[in-house]
Amino acid sequence: MTASPFDSSLLGTLVSDSETAEYFSDETAVRAMLEFEAALAAVQERLEVIPAGSAAKICRAAEAFEPDWARLGTSMPASGHPVTELVRELREAAGPAGQYVHFGATAQDVMDTALVMRLSRVLAAFDRRLQDLVDILADHADRHRNTVMAGRTRTQQAVPVTFGLKAAGWLLPLARHRIRLAELWPRTMTVQFGGAAGTLGTLGTNGLAVMQELARELELGAPAAPWHAQRDGFAELAGWLSLLTGSLGKIGQDLALMAQTEVAEASDGSVGSSSAMPHKANPVNSELLVAIGRANATLLSSMHHAAIHEHERGGSAWTLEWITLPQMATLAGAALRTSREAVCGLSVDPDRMARNLSASSGGVLAESAKVLLAATMPVDEAARRVREASKQARRTGSDLIEILRRDAPADVDWAALSDPANWLGSANAFVDRAIATARAGPAPLRLGSDPERPDPQERRLTDP
Amino acid sequence: MTASPFDSSLLGTLVSDSETAEYFSDETAVRAMLEFEAALAAVQERLEVIPAGSAAKICRAAEAFEPDWARLGTSMPASGHPVTELVRELREAAGPAGQYVHFGATAQDVMDTALVMRLSRVLAAFDRRLQDLVDILADHADRHRNTVMAGRTRTQQAVPVTFGLKAAGWLLPLARHRIRLAELWPRTMTVQFGGAAGTLGTLGTNGLAVMQELARELELGAPAAPWHAQRDGFAELAGWLSLLTGSLGKIGQDLALMAQTEVAEASDGSVGSSSAMPHKANPVNSELLVAIGRANATLLSSMHHAAIHEHERGGSAWTLEWITLPQMATLAGAALRTSREAVCGLSVDPDRMARNLSASSGGVLAESAKVLLAATMPVDEAARRVREASKQARRTGSDLIEILRRDAPADVDWAALSDPANWLGSANAFVDRAIATARAGPAPLRLGSDPERPDPQERRLTDP
Amino acid sequence: MTASPFDSSLLGTLVSDSETAEYFSDETAVRAMLEFEAALAAVQERLEVIPAGSAAKICRAAEAFEPDWARLGTSMPASGHPVTELVRELREAAGPAGQYVHFGATAQDVMDTALVMRLSRVLAAFDRRLQDLVDILADHADRHRNTVMAGRTRTQQAVPVTFGLKAAGWLLPLARHRIRLAELWPRTMTVQFGGAAGTLGTLGTNGLAVMQELARELELGAPAAPWHAQRDGFAELAGWLSLLTGSLGKIGQDLALMAQTEVAEASDGSVGSSSAMPHKANPVNSELLVAIGRANATLLSSMHHAAIHEHERGGSAWTLEWITLPQMATLAGAALRTSREAVCGLSVDPDRMARNLSASSGGVLAESAKVLLAATMPVDEAARRVREASKQARRTGSDLIEILRRDAPADVDWAALSDPANWLGSANAFVDRAIATARAGPAPLRLGSDPERPDPQERRLTDP
Amino acid sequence: MTASPFDSSLLGTLVSDSETAEYFSDETAVRAMLEFEAALAAVQERLEVIPAGSAAKICRAAEAFEPDWARLGTSMPASGHPVTELVRELREAAGPAGQYVHFGATAQDVMDTALVMRLSRVLAAFDRRLQDLVDILADHADRHRNTVMAGRTRTQQAVPVTFGLKAAGWLLPLARHRIRLAELWPRTMTVQFGGAAGTLGTLGTNGLAVMQELARELELGAPAAPWHAQRDGFAELAGWLSLLTGSLGKIGQDLALMAQTEVAEASDGSVGSSSAMPHKANPVNSELLVAIGRANATLLSSMHHAAIHEHERGGSAWTLEWITLPQMATLAGAALRTSREAVCGLSVDPDRMARNLSASSGGVLAESAKVLLAATMPVDEAARRVREASKQARRTGSDLIEILRRDAPADVDWAALSDPANWLGSANAFVDRAIATARAGPAPLRLGSDPERPDPQERRLTDP
Repeated sequence: MTASPFDSSLLGTLVSDSETAEYFSDETAVRAMLEFEAALAAVQERLEVIPAGSAAKICRAAEAFEPDWARLGTSMPASGHPVTELVRELREAAGPAGQYVHFGATAQDVMDTALVMRLSRVLAAFDRRLQDLVDILADHADRHRNTVMAGRTRTQQAVPVTFGLKAAGWLLPLARHRIRLAELWPRTMTVQFGGAAGTLGTLGTNGLAVMQELARELELGAPAAPWHAQRDGFAELAGWLSLLTGSLGKIGQDLALMAQTEVAEASDGSVGSSSAMPHKANPVNSELLVAIGRANATLLSSMHHAAIHEHERGGSAWTLEWITLPQMATLAGAALRTSREAVCGLSVDPDRMARNLSASSGGVLAESAKVLLAATMPVDEAARRVREASKQARRTGSDLIEILRRDAPADVDWAALSDPANWLGSANAFVDRAIATARAGPAPLRLGSDPERPDPQERRLTDP
Repeated sequence: MTASPFDSSLLGTLVSDSETAEYFSDETAVRAMLEFEAALAAVQERLEVIPAGSAAKICRAAEAFEPDWARLGTSMPASGHPVTELVRELREAAGPAGQYVHFGATAQDVMDTALVMRLSRVLAAFDRRLQDLVDILADHADRHRNTVMAGRTRTQQAVPVTFGLKAAGWLLPLARHRIRLAELWPRTMTVQFGGAAGTLGTLGTNGLAVMQELARELELGAPAAPWHAQRDGFAELAGWLSLLTGSLGKIGQDLALMAQTEVAEASDGSVGSSSAMPHKANPVNSELLVAIGRANATLLSSMHHAAIHEHERGGSAWTLEWITLPQMATLAGAALRTSREAVCGLSVDPDRMARNLSASSGGVLAESAKVLLAATMPVDEAARRVREASKQARRTGSDLIEILRRDAPADVDWAALSDPANWLGSANAFVDRAIATARAGPAPLRLGSDPERPDPQERRLTDP
Repeated sequence: MTASPFDSSLLGTLVSDSETAEYFSDETAVRAMLEFEAALAAVQERLEVIPAGSAAKICRAAEAFEPDWARLGTSMPASGHPVTELVRELREAAGPAGQYVHFGATAQDVMDTALVMRLSRVLAAFDRRLQDLVDILADHADRHRNTVMAGRTRTQQAVPVTFGLKAAGWLLPLARHRIRLAELWPRTMTVQFGGAAGTLGTLGTNGLAVMQELARELELGAPAAPWHAQRDGFAELAGWLSLLTGSLGKIGQDLALMAQTEVAEASDGSVGSSSAMPHKANPVNSELLVAIGRANATLLSSMHHAAIHEHERGGSAWTLEWITLPQMATLAGAALRTSREAVCGLSVDPDRMARNLSASSGGVLAESAKVLLAATMPVDEAARRVREASKQARRTGSDLIEILRRDAPADVDWAALSDPANWLGSANAFVDRAIATARAGPAPLRLGSDPERPDPQERRLTDP
Repeated sequence: MTASPFDSSLLGTLVSDSETAEYFSDETAVRAMLEFEAALAAVQERLEVIPAGSAAKICRAAEAFEPDWARLGTSMPASGHPVTELVRELREAAGPAGQYVHFGATAQDVMDTALVMRLSRVLAAFDRRLQDLVDILADHADRHRNTVMAGRTRTQQAVPVTFGLKAAGWLLPLARHRIRLAELWPRTMTVQFGGAAGTLGTLGTNGLAVMQELARELELGAPAAPWHAQRDGFAELAGWLSLLTGSLGKIGQDLALMAQTEVAEASDGSVGSSSAMPHKANPVNSELLVAIGRANATLLSSMHHAAIHEHERGGSAWTLEWITLPQMATLAGAALRTSREAVCGLSVDPDRMARNLSASSGGVLAESAKVLLAATMPVDEAARRVREASKQARRTGSDLIEILRRDAPADVDWAALSDPANWLGSANAFVDRAIATARAGPAPLRLGSDPERPDPQERRLTDP
């Protein structure tokens, strides 16, 4: 019986994401911890910190290890984490070599690094899924570069834009997120290894070398120093997750507004229907994106509070991260899945978009009309005419353009108003630049760097 | 395989609470929904809204109902909630009477009311657990009314207080929380029943009567009107949960500070020990209380954002509540369990407290010395002497009182300084008032009001 | 030169509120502190804690006191608050009696109580402004009880409602907020007086009596014990402010959605116009209400973090309150002003509302049609027909009712569909209950309780 | 009379920062807007979008412009921003050329770009102040590389560390923040120029070129497309501000804990003293750093909510940014000033640090003792002995090392325990790497890129 929405077999279909969640299961977490211990032993044997022959036994014990979940659970309240008991059991399983398990390490080394190991897989997958989204949006931007619709500011139709430009505006933040991720990756995907309080005191003068080798072994970066009490990396990463879900939430917000009965310009791939009202087409996907965007915008705050860490380890700040970061990543995974459904299943209605442009009684063309008039009179005179006509249009409900035409000079080229190319300014130049940005994204993220390991990403962490 | 910390067999031992979490399981949620539908049918038959004989069939179907979890899960993305499919299945199960299942209701009626039904059980249990805590703290306050310790302001020892007064200060907010809960209870523990958009249109002129009877049947209150788009009740309730965990977090913060190696005045019932450092006694309970207090302080924000609900139902605000409120309640349950462990297992060290009072080189008695001096000289002269002596003490490290004695008039009653009764002012008057407050708490919360139902709280919602 | 949006002569016109902000100025803050010191002296003289004749001199000095702002400012970094320097100056000003200024008190007593004194004025004013809003909304609810419009759920037209019912739904949370405020008032509007660490040690056995008399003198309540480290009161109060702005934000959200060019059912009293687009009627008021609702929903979190206060005084938690609470109150004042403008200036367009009902091609009447059909056939047969016709309507764009009529039995009373009374169920019963709730609100909040003081609210705190 | 803590002549000395705040004054804001309009005219004349000769007149009018603050303020509620009125007045001031003021631009272009212009100055200054802090901390790290103190985890003394290592741990996140800032700078310090809804429709085919030239003129970057509805840049920037204040808050938290009466290892440059308790040395600076860290951790959430922007411009999300971002930057400035005071005025007490190491009855050397023992026996036997001795030490209060010595083999080199070099592992290797990181920081941020402008940063925005 599960109680969290993320593990619910009902709500979980909305707010969770199986691809992501599996990395935060107890099983995968413990597996990563065991892998950490095995790698540590391997490295320490190589550096002659522990006796030759120990590592193989520890690695075998780690691989064969079957956690006693009940005992691990029972041990939690004593230590506030499962590492003490896990190490105890692994030591037992490794026989005499067991005394070299977890040598010089502390629980936080295991917990933090095992989390980074899993986050690196999650983030690499997000990076791929994000480029996928960017590509789909680039297609929309290109395909709809001439699909004219109302640009809406502060709830009001302002001037015409294209759906292609709107899609370009959805795309660009996502493309930037990939760059941000590539930047924060080397900074945050690093091993944590500092021993009891960050000196690696047990290892004498070998500490730094062990840390560097361990990083290589786990295909992570090596930090300047252990970061047990420097939580900026996780806070930055949480910020990235929330930037991501915020940008996807903006797509959801736009789609939900476009789905309104009175607007009806797009549907978002939701298969939604109402129990009582079969005529409704609820934009479930879009609303879910907004909900997730807001959930992460709030949760992010806890990760920044957790940066105010006490001394060499603060139990409360650390526990706060455990409550917060996995659900932020899971929500981000759910948002990626949902937005993919939304943009793949997206259907836009260019006719309706065109018809909606008339909802403002010509107001949406006010700016274009002003430009047109200004070809035959001073700009301020053109502006004055449009202002007056707008007031009259609002008062009487008549069409703004009709009012303007009534008194305008004969040489105004009113026909130009019917050709969107005359309104859209640089819309397509911006679409082109967005598509170019999409195409020029950074290379996909990869773990490790050793060219002789053909597919390092798959090699280690047993796929959950 | 579960992925949320709340369902983890490891982290869940810290941040979850089985007594609470069971109310947020899929099983209990669906059971409450079925109970809603059965109660609705019973009431509607009584009011002749649906044909005689239907209710019994619907109730039987609801009682015997076994959800098809896979199908319910699959239906979620279409509707954003499980009610459409659940009602479809229940209708099928009820045979011809099935057409009167969910009559006039909408999914939100079921979802919201089923949540309130479960929250009412959770909150009634919290109320009992809270009074239990209050009683234990009243005992501590009483027992330690003469246990003198340093009062600390802005990290510095200020003047002596008693541990009894500190416990009284932990108690009073909790006592107030019971009053707050009793106040918000009738406001928030109400049925939600409004039909498609709050008019109960399908029920013609019977809507209000059905709502009122349904409330009685479910032992909830009847609101002035359906509150589907008025989310102040849930936001207020979330605020209460966070007030509660904040106050428990403050207890944890104090205990964690008192547990410091250099202070060592109290231990909080944690059995904690470190893997690498067996000499450490980590205050796991206390730190967990702080972590939970901060987690809820952050999460609360989402519930207030969700109050900005759109029109007659906003999918994103509603979903945001589902992500947030259950975990806030679960965390509150965990904090109640943890704080009970902390205050039951609490062991204070009066000797150490007394010894720590000397850490300020007499500074902690500065105020008392000023009072003493002022018996023989003007207040401002006494103040001046203490100020000067304090500076000297800080500069030289000598004892403040020794410095003062050196130059003081002969008739100063320095012996009085050694009797805490001369320092503690109204401490025990405040302790007495806190204990009286604890004893005078409101009656325990109870569902329903019908005196003929011997134990209404147990009668309905199948205990999960 | 001011830098905060709240003090900006530009943005302040949106996000500040002069009626509220004046209570948070330095001038009013210091005035309240002086009033605290004067009242303390008066009470202490009455109780013979300080010599006869001192109080009058202290009161006179306090009344005549002109703060040296530069010196007060310069003193801040040393103490983290202005009280040390303020007391020093006031003592100087009071001559020999000055030694009895601030007797037995600590800076937090002054700071916290002076804040409560000002908040009590702010909240009493909010209470009046809130009832004013409730009354206006009750008028709207009554006047528009037959103004039919689309009820909208999850962005889709669902079934018809009335604008009166919508206004009733805006009203009810506000009416509840007045009850909440009346409940939290005696709990939070209490004096803070505890001395250096909450024992009132300097006052010997007189502490409690002084606290109780001081409360009476300042027309505040007397708490069970000093609450210097119990911050649940301020956190609860902040929660109330955010509940308030959240409910007003929901009104803003609805109005902004109704203002959309494609909906155009209401305008919110904003005089807004766009620089470039004179045809636009930006719902500035409505959007501001949403922005404030969200700002406070976020800020609230800090007040709950601040509840995790350290020992007898935590400087960081305390300072965090100062950054947060005044702006939350100011924002609430701005939201009250803005929502008054919005609901007073509110203009709804019943014709447009009626026309918008046709946007769903009859879908909005699907439920009513089902009821109608069910009068002549089994409920499930009626439901099936509506479901099928809805699908067809969605596919073909034809009108749902037309499709249904085509195959329906001859005895269906289609004419009934044109009379809203046949759709609106209990809408007006709910409107009536909301209006009754509005009328039955609690008495306006008043400071103090002494019947011989004719207008206690006005007597003391020099109006800023 | 100002009401916000940021403009208060009292609280402002704590939570504001004059260097930063001046950029958010109305005066500087309007000056930047005028500069935007002047630059736009200059560029448009150059590109022959407006008639030759207009730009000079507009520039002169902008330079001489004296805002009518009252009128600007009065105009705010109508438009929700001051640009409409400002442009109207500037047009008037520019005579006939005035019709080319703000040509093709919209209010958001002016507001957003003017904010970026000011943020670029603020961030460049922060970058310098940050490197300054990093340098000071590098000195501390170097100077105290052999100052041994207790490493503390979960409130308990764990193993010895050095103060140098602690300072290195404070330094490294700050060094990373400079890298983060250099990375986000080109992404966020870009011009916003899109016209009414992002197409630059008024400018025909000239839009993109004008945007690019305008960026160069204002020494900002040119984005792929207007970002009026893409708020990831501001959200990222807010995240950076909160990362910064979180890292400074961690320094404050450590210093506050070290300042405790019972620890007394460091004082933070605060001149603090208490009104009632002259012996106290309140760590006002440290607590302020924590308060600011938490304030920004919370506020950040609003900036991420604001990323869920509606369509081509959402008034509520935009206004929410105005309430939030300036105060986050101001708080960051205050934290930089305060932390400079704290680390410059920092005084550490190596003797007390050494003495405190004895507080754990030898426990802090448990790990070192284990290493020592393991030189003469199997690791697990050494561990067992330490575990048993620790239990005994805790039970009896005896010194752990004494207990161990009693039964240990004769050849254990106990003297080694007294040489910290035998405990500190890689501490100094990490200190060296931190110092190297500090020295290798990126070049200071500079506006613009034109090598012919000798000091572009100073050239334009009239220094406030």
